[in-house]
Amino acid sequence: MSPDRQKIAQEFRLLQDHICKELERIDGKASFEQDLWDRSEGGGGRTRIIRHGGVIEKGGVAFSEVYGPVSEVMKKQLGLEGDEFFATGVSIVLHPENPFVPIIHMNVRYFEMDSGVCWFGGGIDLTPHYIDAVQASLFHAHLKRTCDKYDGSFYPKFKVWADDYFYNQHRNETRGVGGVFFDHLTPSEIVSKEDIFHFCVDLGKLFPVAYEEQVNFGKDRIYGEQEILWRNLRRGRYVEFNLVYDRGTKFGLLSGGRTESILMSLPETASWEYNFIPSQDSPEAKTLSKLQKGVNWLD
Amino acid sequence: MSPDRQKIAQEFRLLQDHICKELERIDGKASFEQDLWDRSEGGGGRTRIIRHGGVIEKGGVAFSEVYGPVSEVMKKQLGLEGDEFFATGVSIVLHPENPFVPIIHMNVRYFEMDSGVCWFGGGIDLTPHYIDAVQASLFHAHLKRTCDKYDGSFYPKFKVWADDYFYNQHRNETRGVGGVFFDHLTPSEIVSKEDIFHFCVDLGKLFPVAYEEQVNFGKDRIYGEQEILWRNLRRGRYVEFNLVYDRGTKFGLLSGGRTESILMSLPETASWEYNFIPSQDSPEAKTLSKLQKGVNWLD
Repeated sequence: MSPDRQKIAQEFRLLQDHICKELERIDGKASFEQDLWDRSEGGGGRTRIIRHGGVIEKGGVAFSEVYGPVSEVMKKQLGLEGDEFFATGVSIVLHPENPFVPIIHMNVRYFEMDSGVCWFGGGIDLTPHYIDAVQASLFHAHLKRTCDKYDGSFYPKFKVWADDYFYNQHRNETRGVGGVFFDHLTPSEIVSKEDIFHFCVDLGKLFPVAYEEQVNFGKDRIYGEQEILWRNLRRGRYVEFNLVYDRGTKFGLLSGGRTESILMSLPETASWEYNFIPSQDSPEAKTLSKLQKGVNWLD
Repeated sequence: MSPDRQKIAQEFRLLQDHICKELERIDGKASFEQDLWDRSEGGGGRTRIIRHGGVIEKGGVAFSEVYGPVSEVMKKQLGLEGDEFFATGVSIVLHPENPFVPIIHMNVRYFEMDSGVCWFGGGIDLTPHYIDAVQASLFHAHLKRTCDKYDGSFYPKFKVWADDYFYNQHRNETRGVGGVFFDHLTPSEIVSKEDIFHFCVDLGKLFPVAYEEQVNFGKDRIYGEQEILWRNLRRGRYVEFNLVYDRGTKFGLLSGGRTESILMSLPETASWEYNFIPSQDSPEAKTLSKLQKGVNWLD
Protein backbone atom coordinates (compact mmCIF):
# COMPACT_ATOMS: atom_id res chain seq x y z
CA MET A 1 0.00 0.00 0.00
CA SER A 2 1.27 3.44 -0.86
CA PRO A 3 2.37 5.23 2.35
CA ASP A 4 0.33 8.30 3.29
CA ARG A 5 1.61 11.48 4.90
CA GLN A 6 0.90 10.33 8.46
CA LYS A 7 2.80 7.11 7.92
CA ILE A 8 5.75 8.96 6.38
CA ALA A 9 5.90 11.54 9.17
CA GLN A 10 5.67 8.81 11.79
CA GLU A 11 8.49 6.82 10.19
CA PHE A 12 10.65 9.97 10.02
CA ARG A 13 9.97 10.58 13.71
CA LEU A 14 11.18 7.05 14.49
CA LEU A 15 14.19 7.66 12.28
CA GLN A 16 15.10 10.72 14.34
CA ASP A 17 14.78 8.63 17.53
CA HIS A 18 16.96 5.88 16.12
CA ILE A 19 19.67 8.21 14.83
CA CYS A 20 19.84 10.18 18.10
CA LYS A 21 20.19 6.99 20.10
CA GLU A 22 22.94 5.72 17.83
CA LEU A 23 24.79 9.04 17.85
CA GLU A 24 24.72 9.15 21.66
CA ARG A 25 26.28 5.69 21.70
CA ILE A 26 28.92 6.74 19.14
CA ASP A 27 29.66 9.98 20.96
CA GLY A 28 29.97 8.20 24.30
CA LYS A 29 29.59 11.32 26.43
CA ALA A 30 26.90 13.87 25.56
CA SER A 31 23.13 13.48 25.22
CA PHE A 32 20.68 15.28 22.97
CA GLU A 33 18.53 18.06 24.37
CA GLN A 34 15.13 18.45 22.78
CA ASP A 35 13.45 21.70 21.83
CA LEU A 36 9.81 21.33 20.79
CA TRP A 37 8.27 24.05 18.66
CA ASP A 38 4.96 24.87 17.03
CA ARG A 39 4.30 26.63 13.78
CA SER A 40 1.39 29.04 14.03
CA GLU A 41 0.16 28.26 10.50
CA GLY A 42 0.24 24.49 11.15
CA GLY A 43 2.56 21.79 12.42
CA GLY A 44 5.82 22.00 14.30
CA GLY A 45 8.95 20.06 15.09
CA ARG A 46 11.42 18.47 17.46
CA THR A 47 14.87 20.00 17.23
CA ARG A 48 17.49 17.97 19.08
CA ILE A 49 20.89 19.41 19.84
CA ILE A 50 24.07 17.77 21.11
CA ARG A 51 26.99 19.81 22.44
CA HIS A 52 30.48 19.34 23.81
CA GLY A 53 30.40 15.59 23.44
CA GLY A 54 33.24 13.11 23.32
CA VAL A 55 33.25 13.35 19.52
CA ILE A 56 30.66 15.94 18.47
CA GLU A 57 31.34 19.54 19.43
CA LYS A 58 28.00 20.79 18.09
CA GLY A 59 25.31 18.98 16.17
CA GLY A 60 21.62 18.77 15.56
CA VAL A 61 19.10 16.18 14.46
CA ALA A 62 15.81 17.85 13.58
CA PHE A 63 12.41 16.47 12.72
CA SER A 64 9.63 18.66 11.39
CA GLU A 65 6.12 18.22 10.05
CA VAL A 66 4.57 21.41 8.75
CA TYR A 67 1.49 22.18 6.69
CA GLY A 68 -0.98 24.90 5.82
CA PRO A 69 -1.67 27.47 3.14
CA VAL A 70 0.98 28.04 0.47
CA SER A 71 2.41 31.55 1.06
CA GLU A 72 3.45 34.02 -1.63
CA VAL A 73 7.13 33.42 -0.84
CA MET A 74 6.65 29.66 -1.30
CA LYS A 75 4.87 30.19 -4.61
CA LYS A 76 7.62 32.46 -5.84
CA GLN A 77 10.67 30.63 -4.48
CA LEU A 78 9.53 27.03 -4.79
CA GLY A 79 7.28 27.51 -7.81
CA LEU A 80 4.50 25.68 -5.99
CA GLU A 81 1.11 25.46 -7.60
CA GLY A 82 -1.75 24.82 -5.22
CA ASP A 83 -3.30 26.19 -2.06
CA GLU A 84 -2.21 23.82 0.70
CA PHE A 85 1.04 21.97 1.31
CA PHE A 86 2.38 19.33 3.66
CA ALA A 87 6.09 18.76 4.33
CA THR A 88 7.97 16.50 6.71
CA GLY A 89 11.63 15.65 7.05
CA VAL A 90 14.70 14.87 9.10
CA SER A 91 17.80 17.07 8.89
CA ILE A 92 21.20 16.51 10.46
CA VAL A 93 24.49 18.37 10.63
CA LEU A 94 27.31 17.29 12.95
CA HIS A 95 30.48 19.28 13.65
CA PRO A 96 33.04 17.07 15.42
CA GLU A 97 35.81 18.46 17.58
CA ASN A 98 38.68 16.38 16.21
CA PRO A 99 39.79 17.82 12.83
CA PHE A 100 40.38 14.26 11.57
CA VAL A 101 36.69 13.42 11.94
CA PRO A 102 34.60 14.81 9.05
CA ILE A 103 31.59 17.11 9.26
CA ILE A 104 28.51 15.26 8.02
CA HIS A 105 25.08 16.25 6.78
CA MET A 106 21.94 14.26 6.02
CA ASN A 107 18.44 15.21 5.02
CA VAL A 108 15.36 13.30 3.90
CA ARG A 109 12.12 15.11 3.17
CA TYR A 110 8.65 14.52 1.78
CA PHE A 111 6.45 17.17 0.16
CA GLU A 112 2.80 16.97 -0.84
CA MET A 113 0.36 19.44 -2.38
CA ASP A 114 -3.43 19.45 -2.08
CA SER A 115 -3.50 18.74 -5.80
CA GLY A 116 -2.14 15.27 -4.99
CA VAL A 117 1.33 15.90 -6.40
CA CYS A 118 4.06 14.61 -4.09
CA TRP A 119 7.79 14.13 -4.09
CA PHE A 120 10.79 13.16 -1.96
CA GLY A 121 14.19 14.78 -1.66
CA GLY A 122 17.29 14.19 0.37
CA GLY A 123 20.94 13.37 0.52
CA ILE A 124 23.99 12.64 2.61
CA ASP A 125 27.31 14.35 2.12
CA LEU A 126 30.64 14.25 3.91
CA THR A 127 32.96 17.20 4.55
CA PRO A 128 36.32 16.02 5.87
CA HIS A 129 38.59 18.78 7.17
CA TYR A 130 41.37 16.52 5.89
CA ILE A 131 40.48 14.34 2.94
CA ASP A 132 41.58 10.70 3.09
CA ALA A 133 40.84 8.73 -0.08
CA VAL A 134 40.18 5.47 1.80
CA GLN A 135 37.70 7.14 4.15
CA ALA A 136 35.95 8.80 1.22
CA SER A 137 35.71 5.55 -0.72
CA LEU A 138 34.26 3.67 2.28
CA PHE A 139 31.63 6.36 2.57
CA HIS A 140 30.72 6.29 -1.12
CA ALA A 141 30.63 2.48 -1.16
CA HIS A 142 27.95 2.57 1.57
CA LEU A 143 25.90 5.04 -0.43
CA LYS A 144 26.20 3.05 -3.64
CA ARG A 145 25.09 -0.16 -1.94
CA THR A 146 21.99 1.51 -0.51
CA CYS A 147 21.17 3.20 -3.84
CA ASP A 148 21.68 -0.01 -5.84
CA LYS A 149 19.01 -1.79 -3.79
CA TYR A 150 16.46 0.48 -5.46
CA ASP A 151 17.74 1.36 -8.92
CA GLY A 152 21.09 1.10 -10.67
CA SER A 153 20.71 4.64 -11.96
CA PHE A 154 20.39 6.19 -8.49
CA TYR A 155 24.02 6.28 -7.34
CA PRO A 156 25.62 7.61 -10.55
CA LYS A 157 22.88 10.21 -10.96
CA PHE A 158 22.66 11.32 -7.33
CA LYS A 159 26.45 11.38 -6.90
CA VAL A 160 26.80 13.90 -9.75
CA TRP A 161 23.86 15.85 -8.35
CA ALA A 162 25.66 16.09 -4.97
CA ASP A 163 28.86 17.30 -6.67
CA ASP A 164 26.84 20.04 -8.38
CA TYR A 165 24.74 20.96 -5.38
CA PHE A 166 27.34 21.01 -2.59
CA TYR A 167 29.54 23.45 -4.46
CA ASN A 168 30.95 26.80 -3.33
CA GLN A 169 30.92 28.55 -6.68
CA HIS A 170 32.81 31.63 -5.46
CA ARG A 171 35.61 29.40 -4.13
CA ASN A 172 35.59 26.96 -7.05
CA GLU A 173 35.48 24.22 -4.44
CA THR A 174 33.17 21.37 -3.58
CA ARG A 175 32.09 21.48 0.07
CA GLY A 176 33.75 18.13 0.72
CA VAL A 177 33.87 14.70 -0.89
CA GLY A 178 30.17 14.82 -1.78
CA GLY A 179 27.82 11.90 -1.46
CA VAL A 180 24.32 11.70 -2.89
CA PHE A 181 21.67 14.36 -3.41
CA PHE A 182 18.25 14.22 -5.06
CA ASP A 183 15.18 16.41 -5.21
CA HIS A 184 11.67 16.28 -6.66
CA LEU A 185 11.85 12.49 -6.89
CA THR A 186 8.31 11.52 -7.86
CA PRO A 187 6.79 8.04 -8.12
CA SER A 188 7.13 6.66 -11.65
CA GLU A 189 7.08 3.41 -13.59
CA ILE A 190 10.63 2.70 -12.40
CA VAL A 191 10.11 3.42 -8.67
CA SER A 192 6.88 3.42 -6.70
CA LYS A 193 6.11 5.86 -3.90
CA GLU A 194 6.69 3.04 -1.45
CA ASP A 195 10.13 2.35 -2.94
CA ILE A 196 11.24 5.97 -2.74
CA PHE A 197 9.96 6.16 0.83
CA HIS A 198 11.91 3.05 1.82
CA PHE A 199 14.97 4.43 0.04
CA CYS A 200 14.79 7.59 2.19
CA VAL A 201 14.37 5.56 5.37
CA ASP A 202 17.26 3.29 4.34
CA LEU A 203 19.50 6.31 3.80
CA GLY A 204 18.55 7.49 7.27
CA LYS A 205 19.41 4.11 8.78
CA LEU A 206 22.68 4.04 6.89
CA PHE A 207 23.64 7.41 8.35
CA PRO A 208 24.87 6.31 11.82
CA VAL A 209 26.57 3.22 10.38
CA ALA A 210 28.51 5.21 7.79
CA TYR A 211 29.35 7.98 10.24
CA GLU A 212 30.59 5.62 12.96
CA GLU A 213 33.17 4.32 10.51
CA GLN A 214 34.34 7.88 9.83
CA VAL A 215 34.45 8.67 13.54
CA ASN A 216 36.47 5.57 14.40
CA PHE A 217 38.97 6.38 11.67
CA GLY A 218 39.79 9.82 13.06
CA LYS A 219 38.69 10.24 16.64
CA ASP A 220 41.89 9.13 18.35
CA ARG A 221 44.28 10.95 16.08
CA ILE A 222 46.42 13.61 17.76
CA TYR A 223 46.11 17.20 16.58
CA GLY A 224 47.50 20.59 17.44
CA GLU A 225 47.03 24.28 16.73
CA GLN A 226 47.61 24.00 12.99
CA GLU A 227 44.90 21.39 12.60
CA ILE A 228 42.48 23.42 14.75
CA LEU A 229 43.06 26.53 12.63
CA TRP A 230 42.50 24.53 9.45
CA ARG A 231 39.35 22.92 10.86
CA ASN A 232 37.99 26.37 11.72
CA LEU A 233 38.79 27.73 8.26
CA ARG A 234 37.01 24.76 6.67
CA ARG A 235 34.06 25.40 8.96
CA GLY A 236 34.09 28.96 7.61
CA ARG A 237 33.60 27.54 4.11
CA TYR A 238 30.75 25.40 5.46
CA VAL A 239 29.10 28.56 6.79
CA GLU A 240 29.60 30.24 3.41
CA PHE A 241 27.93 27.36 1.60
CA ASN A 242 24.97 27.16 3.96
CA LEU A 243 24.25 30.89 4.01
CA VAL A 244 24.99 31.72 0.36
CA TYR A 245 23.82 28.64 -1.56
CA ASP A 246 21.88 26.07 0.45
CA ARG A 247 18.32 26.25 -0.86
CA GLY A 248 16.74 24.83 2.30
CA THR A 249 18.52 27.37 4.50
CA LYS A 250 17.78 30.35 2.28
CA PHE A 251 14.18 29.40 1.70
CA GLY A 252 13.66 28.71 5.40
CA LEU A 253 15.15 32.01 6.53
CA LEU A 254 13.35 34.14 3.97
CA SER A 255 9.97 32.41 4.33
CA GLY A 256 9.81 32.85 8.09
CA GLY A 257 10.93 29.36 9.07
CA ARG A 258 12.23 28.67 12.57
CA THR A 259 15.62 30.37 12.50
CA GLU A 260 17.30 28.46 15.34
CA SER A 261 16.33 25.08 13.87
CA ILE A 262 17.53 26.10 10.41
CA LEU A 263 20.83 27.51 11.67
CA MET A 264 21.61 24.57 13.97
CA SER A 265 23.77 23.59 10.95
CA LEU A 266 26.34 26.27 11.81
CA PRO A 267 29.43 25.30 13.82
CA GLU A 268 30.20 26.50 17.33
CA THR A 269 33.20 28.41 15.99
CA ALA A 270 34.44 29.28 12.51
CA SER A 271 37.35 31.34 11.21
CA TRP A 272 38.31 33.46 8.24
CA GLU A 273 41.82 34.55 7.33
CA TYR A 274 42.50 36.82 4.40
CA ASN A 275 43.87 34.86 1.47
CA PHE A 276 45.02 31.84 3.48
CA ILE A 277 47.17 29.62 1.28
CA PRO A 278 48.46 26.35 2.77
CA SER A 279 52.12 25.56 2.21
CA GLN A 280 52.96 23.36 -0.77
CA ASP A 281 52.52 19.60 -0.36
CA SER A 282 51.03 20.06 3.12
CA PRO A 283 48.05 17.88 4.13
CA GLU A 284 45.94 21.06 3.90
CA ALA A 285 47.07 21.74 0.31
CA LYS A 286 46.39 18.12 -0.62
CA THR A 287 42.85 18.42 0.73
CA LEU A 288 42.23 21.59 -1.27
CA SER A 289 43.42 19.89 -4.46
CA LYS A 290 40.74 17.20 -4.02
CA LEU A 291 37.79 19.56 -3.53
CA GLN A 292 36.66 19.16 -7.11
CA LYS A 293 33.65 17.86 -8.95
CA GLY A 294 33.78 14.58 -10.78
CA VAL A 295 36.18 12.61 -8.58
CA ASN A 296 35.28 8.90 -8.65
CA TRP A 297 35.96 7.94 -5.05
CA LEU A 298 35.19 4.29 -5.73
CA ASP A 299 38.08 3.78 -8.15
CA MET B 1 33.29 71.51 -12.98
CA SER B 2 31.52 68.18 -12.75
CA PRO B 3 34.03 65.53 -11.64
CA ASP B 4 34.77 62.80 -14.19
CA ARG B 5 35.43 59.14 -13.48
CA GLN B 6 39.21 59.52 -13.35
CA LYS B 7 38.93 62.35 -10.85
CA ILE B 8 36.51 60.36 -8.69
CA ALA B 9 38.65 57.21 -8.74
CA GLN B 10 41.76 59.26 -7.91
CA GLU B 11 40.04 60.96 -4.97
CA PHE B 12 38.82 57.56 -3.68
CA ARG B 13 42.39 56.25 -3.92
CA LEU B 14 43.59 59.17 -1.80
CA LEU B 15 40.74 58.52 0.61
CA GLN B 16 41.94 54.94 1.06
CA ASP B 17 45.47 56.24 1.74
CA HIS B 18 44.23 58.77 4.27
CA ILE B 19 41.99 56.30 6.12
CA CYS B 20 44.69 53.61 6.31
CA LYS B 21 47.18 56.12 7.71
CA GLU B 22 44.70 57.32 10.31
CA LEU B 23 43.70 53.77 11.29
CA GLU B 24 47.35 52.78 11.77
CA ARG B 25 47.76 55.76 14.11
CA ILE B 26 44.56 54.86 16.01
CA ASP B 27 45.52 51.19 16.21
CA GLY B 28 49.02 52.03 17.44
CA LYS B 29 50.52 48.64 16.65
CA ALA B 30 49.73 46.94 13.32
CA SER B 31 50.24 48.15 9.75
CA PHE B 32 48.21 47.45 6.64
CA GLU B 33 49.44 44.92 4.13
CA GLN B 34 48.53 45.59 0.52
CA ASP B 35 47.31 43.06 -2.01
CA LEU B 36 47.12 44.38 -5.58
CA TRP B 37 44.85 42.61 -8.02
CA ASP B 38 43.79 42.86 -11.64
CA ARG B 39 40.45 42.09 -13.18
CA SER B 40 40.80 40.33 -16.52
CA GLU B 41 37.82 42.16 -18.05
CA GLY B 42 39.17 45.56 -16.98
CA GLY B 43 40.46 47.36 -13.91
CA GLY B 44 41.56 46.06 -10.53
CA GLY B 45 42.08 47.10 -6.96
CA ARG B 46 44.16 47.54 -3.86
CA THR B 47 42.94 45.46 -0.94
CA ARG B 48 44.58 46.46 2.34
CA ILE B 49 44.37 44.23 5.38
CA ILE B 50 45.26 44.85 9.01
CA ARG B 51 45.57 42.00 11.53
CA HIS B 52 46.26 41.44 15.20
CA GLY B 53 46.66 45.12 15.96
CA GLY B 54 46.47 46.93 19.25
CA VAL B 55 42.78 47.59 18.63
CA ILE B 56 41.78 45.90 15.38
CA GLU B 57 41.84 42.10 15.31
CA LYS B 58 40.99 41.91 11.60
CA GLY B 59 40.04 44.62 9.17
CA GLY B 60 40.22 45.69 5.57
CA VAL B 61 40.19 48.92 3.60
CA ALA B 62 39.67 48.19 -0.08
CA PHE B 63 39.80 50.39 -3.14
CA SER B 64 38.66 49.17 -6.54
CA GLU B 65 38.16 50.61 -10.00
CA VAL B 66 36.59 48.19 -12.45
CA TYR B 67 35.09 48.57 -15.89
CA GLY B 68 34.22 46.69 -19.06
CA PRO B 69 31.29 45.02 -20.74
CA VAL B 70 28.09 44.55 -18.76
CA SER B 71 27.68 40.80 -18.14
CA GLU B 72 24.43 38.88 -18.14
CA VAL B 73 24.55 38.50 -14.34
CA MET B 74 24.92 42.29 -13.96
CA LYS B 75 22.01 42.93 -16.30
CA LYS B 76 19.83 40.52 -14.42
CA GLN B 77 20.87 41.30 -10.85
CA LEU B 78 21.50 45.04 -11.12
CA GLY B 79 18.96 45.76 -13.85
CA LEU B 80 21.65 47.62 -15.79
CA GLU B 81 20.81 48.90 -19.25
CA GLY B 82 23.82 49.52 -21.46
CA ASP B 83 26.89 47.78 -22.79
CA GLU B 84 29.78 49.16 -20.76
CA PHE B 85 30.05 50.12 -17.10
CA PHE B 86 32.56 51.81 -14.82
CA ALA B 87 32.57 51.44 -11.02
CA THR B 88 34.91 52.66 -8.32
CA GLY B 89 34.67 52.67 -4.55
CA VAL B 90 36.19 52.30 -1.12
CA SER B 91 34.92 49.63 1.32
CA ILE B 92 35.87 49.14 4.94
CA VAL B 93 35.01 46.66 7.68
CA LEU B 94 36.88 46.57 11.00
CA HIS B 95 36.52 43.89 13.66
CA PRO B 96 38.14 45.07 16.92
CA GLU B 97 39.40 42.68 19.57
CA ASN B 98 37.89 44.41 22.61
CA PRO B 99 34.16 43.62 22.83
CA PHE B 100 33.53 47.18 24.06
CA VAL B 101 34.79 48.64 20.77
CA PRO B 102 32.17 48.40 18.00
CA ILE B 103 32.51 46.77 14.60
CA ILE B 104 32.31 49.44 11.89
CA HIS B 105 31.60 49.48 8.17
CA MET B 106 31.89 52.17 5.53
CA ASN B 107 31.45 52.19 1.78
CA VAL B 108 31.37 54.88 -0.89
CA ARG B 109 30.95 54.00 -4.54
CA TYR B 110 30.42 55.56 -7.93
CA PHE B 111 28.79 53.86 -10.93
CA GLU B 112 28.61 55.01 -14.53
CA MET B 113 27.14 53.54 -17.71
CA ASP B 114 28.19 54.24 -21.28
CA SER B 115 24.76 55.80 -21.75
CA GLY B 116 25.96 58.64 -19.49
CA VAL B 117 23.76 57.66 -16.53
CA CYS B 118 25.68 57.79 -13.25
CA TRP B 119 25.03 57.50 -9.55
CA PHE B 120 26.66 57.31 -6.12
CA GLY B 121 25.97 55.01 -3.22
CA GLY B 122 27.40 54.49 0.23
CA GLY B 123 26.99 54.51 3.95
CA ILE B 124 28.53 54.10 7.37
CA ASP B 125 27.05 51.93 10.08
CA LEU B 126 28.12 50.94 13.56
CA THR B 127 27.71 47.51 15.18
CA PRO B 128 28.52 47.66 18.89
CA HIS B 129 28.79 44.28 20.60
CA TYR B 130 27.46 46.18 23.62
CA ILE B 131 25.22 49.13 22.83
CA ASP B 132 25.86 52.32 24.78
CA ALA B 133 23.35 55.08 24.06
CA VAL B 134 25.92 57.88 24.50
CA GLN B 135 28.36 56.24 22.07
CA ALA B 136 25.56 55.70 19.55
CA SER B 137 24.38 59.30 19.80
CA LEU B 138 27.91 60.67 19.31
CA PHE B 139 28.19 58.56 16.17
CA HIS B 140 24.85 59.68 14.76
CA ALA B 141 25.57 63.34 15.59
CA HIS B 142 28.70 63.15 13.40
CA LEU B 143 26.71 61.67 10.54
CA LYS B 144 23.95 64.26 10.83
CA ARG B 145 26.45 67.14 10.78
CA THR B 146 28.11 65.82 7.63
CA CYS B 147 24.74 65.16 5.93
CA ASP B 148 23.36 68.58 6.87
CA LYS B 149 26.21 70.32 5.06
CA TYR B 150 24.65 69.06 1.82
CA ASP B 151 20.91 68.80 2.31
CA GLY B 152 18.61 68.80 5.31
CA SER B 153 16.75 65.79 3.94
CA PHE B 154 19.85 63.56 3.78
CA TYR B 155 20.21 62.48 7.41
CA PRO B 156 16.55 61.65 8.14
CA LYS B 157 16.20 59.84 4.83
CA PHE B 158 19.51 57.96 4.90
CA LYS B 159 19.15 57.05 8.59
CA VAL B 160 15.85 55.26 7.90
CA TRP B 161 17.40 53.64 4.82
CA ALA B 162 20.23 52.27 7.00
CA ASP B 163 17.73 50.87 9.53
CA ASP B 164 15.95 49.08 6.69
CA TYR B 165 19.08 47.91 4.90
CA PHE B 166 21.24 46.67 7.80
CA TYR B 167 18.53 44.39 9.04
CA ASN B 168 18.66 40.64 9.78
CA GLN B 169 15.11 39.77 8.83
CA HIS B 170 15.30 36.17 10.09
CA ARG B 171 16.47 37.43 13.52
CA ASN B 172 14.12 40.45 13.63
CA GLU B 173 17.20 42.46 14.57
CA THR B 174 19.04 45.43 13.16
CA ARG B 175 22.73 44.68 12.63
CA GLY B 176 23.68 47.37 15.14
CA VAL B 177 22.79 50.99 15.83
CA GLY B 178 22.66 51.83 12.13
CA GLY B 179 24.01 55.00 10.60
CA VAL B 180 23.37 56.22 7.07
CA PHE B 181 22.87 54.33 3.81
CA PHE B 182 22.01 55.55 0.31
CA ASP B 183 22.05 54.12 -3.18
CA HIS B 184 21.37 55.28 -6.74
CA LEU B 185 21.84 58.89 -5.68
CA THR B 186 21.81 60.75 -8.99
CA PRO B 187 22.55 64.42 -9.67
CA SER B 188 19.37 66.50 -9.55
CA GLU B 189 18.16 70.06 -9.10
CA ILE B 190 18.73 69.74 -5.35
CA VAL B 191 22.26 68.29 -5.44
CA SER B 192 24.81 68.47 -8.25
CA LYS B 193 27.16 65.64 -9.15
CA GLU B 194 29.95 67.64 -7.56
CA ASP B 195 27.99 67.96 -4.31
CA ILE B 196 27.24 64.23 -4.09
CA PHE B 197 30.87 63.47 -4.81
CA HIS B 198 32.05 65.80 -2.06
CA PHE B 199 29.46 64.31 0.27
CA CYS B 200 30.95 60.84 -0.32
CA VAL B 201 34.48 62.10 0.24
CA ASP B 202 33.37 63.93 3.39
CA LEU B 203 31.80 60.73 4.74
CA GLY B 204 35.11 58.99 4.06
CA LYS B 205 37.04 61.67 5.93
CA LEU B 206 34.58 61.54 8.79
CA PHE B 207 35.12 57.79 9.14
CA PRO B 208 38.42 57.77 11.11
CA VAL B 209 37.30 60.72 13.25
CA ALA B 210 34.04 59.05 14.25
CA TYR B 211 35.70 55.67 14.78
CA GLU B 212 38.53 57.04 16.93
CA GLU B 213 35.91 58.34 19.36
CA GLN B 214 34.32 54.88 19.52
CA VAL B 215 37.70 53.22 20.00
CA ASN B 216 38.72 55.56 22.81
CA PHE B 217 35.47 54.95 24.59
CA GLY B 218 35.95 51.19 24.77
CA LYS B 219 39.53 50.15 24.15
CA ASP B 220 40.75 50.18 27.75
CA ARG B 221 37.73 48.49 29.26
CA ILE B 222 38.39 45.14 30.94
CA TYR B 223 36.62 42.07 29.60
CA GLY B 224 36.49 38.35 30.27
CA GLU B 225 35.20 35.12 28.82
CA GLN B 226 31.55 36.13 28.89
CA GLU B 227 32.23 39.26 26.84
CA ILE B 228 34.37 37.31 24.36
CA LEU B 229 31.62 34.73 23.86
CA TRP B 230 29.06 37.49 23.33
CA ARG B 231 31.37 39.31 20.90
CA ASN B 232 31.78 36.10 18.89
CA LEU B 233 28.04 35.46 18.82
CA ARG B 234 27.45 39.03 17.59
CA ARG B 235 30.12 38.45 14.95
CA GLY B 236 28.11 35.38 13.92
CA ARG B 237 25.13 37.66 13.26
CA TYR B 238 27.41 39.93 11.25
CA VAL B 239 28.41 36.94 9.10
CA GLU B 240 24.73 36.04 8.67
CA PHE B 241 23.89 39.55 7.48
CA ASN B 242 26.78 39.76 5.05
CA LEU B 243 26.24 36.34 3.48
CA VAL B 244 22.42 36.28 3.43
CA TYR B 245 21.42 39.89 2.75
CA ASP B 246 24.24 42.24 1.80
CA ARG B 247 23.67 43.10 -1.85
CA GLY B 248 27.28 44.00 -2.56
CA THR B 249 28.55 40.71 -1.12
CA LYS B 250 25.99 38.55 -2.87
CA PHE B 251 26.33 40.31 -6.20
CA GLY B 252 30.11 40.21 -5.96
CA LEU B 253 30.26 36.49 -5.16
CA LEU B 254 27.73 35.44 -7.79
CA SER B 255 29.12 37.64 -10.56
CA GLY B 256 32.67 36.37 -10.26
CA GLY B 257 34.07 39.24 -8.19
CA ARG B 258 37.29 38.83 -6.23
CA THR B 259 36.21 36.55 -3.41
CA GLU B 260 38.98 37.37 -0.93
CA SER B 261 38.41 41.12 -1.26
CA ILE B 262 34.67 40.73 -0.88
CA LEU B 263 34.93 38.44 2.14
CA MET B 264 37.55 40.53 3.93
CA SER B 265 34.44 41.76 5.79
CA LEU B 266 34.22 38.49 7.74
CA PRO B 267 35.71 38.32 11.24
CA GLU B 268 38.70 36.19 12.24
CA THR B 269 36.43 34.11 14.46
CA ALA B 270 32.67 33.86 14.93
CA SER B 271 30.44 31.62 17.03
CA TRP B 272 26.98 30.12 17.00
CA GLU B 273 25.19 28.60 19.99
CA TYR B 274 21.80 27.01 19.66
CA ASN B 275 19.09 29.31 20.99
CA PHE B 276 21.39 31.46 23.12
CA ILE B 277 19.28 33.67 25.38
CA PRO B 278 21.11 36.16 27.61
CA SER B 279 19.99 36.32 31.23
CA GLN B 280 17.41 38.94 32.10
CA ASP B 281 18.61 42.51 32.64
CA SER B 282 22.17 41.55 31.63
CA PRO B 283 24.16 43.97 29.43
CA GLU B 284 23.73 41.42 26.62
CA ALA B 285 19.92 41.40 27.01
CA LYS B 286 19.88 45.21 27.06
CA THR B 287 21.83 45.30 23.81
CA LEU B 288 19.40 42.87 22.16
CA SER B 289 16.44 45.01 23.21
CA LYS B 290 17.93 48.00 21.35
CA LEU B 291 18.52 46.22 18.03
CA GLN B 292 15.39 47.68 16.50
CA LYS B 293 14.49 49.94 13.63
CA GLY B 294 13.33 53.47 14.26
CA VAL B 295 15.36 54.34 17.38
CA ASN B 296 16.18 58.05 17.38
CA TRP B 297 19.70 57.98 18.82
CA LEU B 298 19.92 61.78 18.85
CA ASP B 299 17.11 62.27 21.38
